[in-house]
Amino acid sequence: MSFLDYLLGTKKKSASVARERLQIILAHERAGRGGPDYLPALQQELIAVISKYVSVGQDDIKVSLERQDDYDVLEVNIVLPEGAKR
Amino acid sequence: MSFLDYLLGTKKKSASVARERLQIILAHERAGRGGPDYLPALQQELIAVISKYVSVGQDDIKVSLERQDDYDVLEVNIVLPEGAKR
Repeated sequence: MSFLDYLLGTKKKSASVARERLQIILAHERAGRGGPDYLPALQQELIAVISKYVSVGQDDIKVSLERQDDYDVLEVNIVLPEGAKR
Repeated sequence: MSFLDYLLGTKKKSASVARERLQIILAHERAGRGGPDYLPALQQELIAVISKYVSVGQDDIKVSLERQDDYDVLEVNIVLPEGAKR
């Protein structure tokens, strides 16, 4: 199943108002223990890059970090205000 | 189902060698027709940001862009060379 199928599947249930949204997912599969955790720093930089394209307020950004087995998954969900383009 | 469950589900089938990987997914849900398509430019900048954290060669990066309904999904898969940290 492709990510798009997964996304369309999860979206159909939520009858949310049609708003422009941007979802960024960063999945880091580690090959072994240890190694620096650069996801938090990377997250800040990714949001900074995105803010160059769309004007986004801190309240529009939801961040979640999940860890399981060898995976760290960082998910950033941004609801874009109407007419948010730069 | 969370993205992590989706990811773990897809990974179990592929008995690939344990390599460090980074997967970036950018899902843009448009609220209507038109509007500039900034994903390609955003993609270049995201890869540039990531290259600041891990040394990545062009051959290690696979990019795919899918479009369906109101969604554009950009997927960047990076296999990190051993000892790739900066």
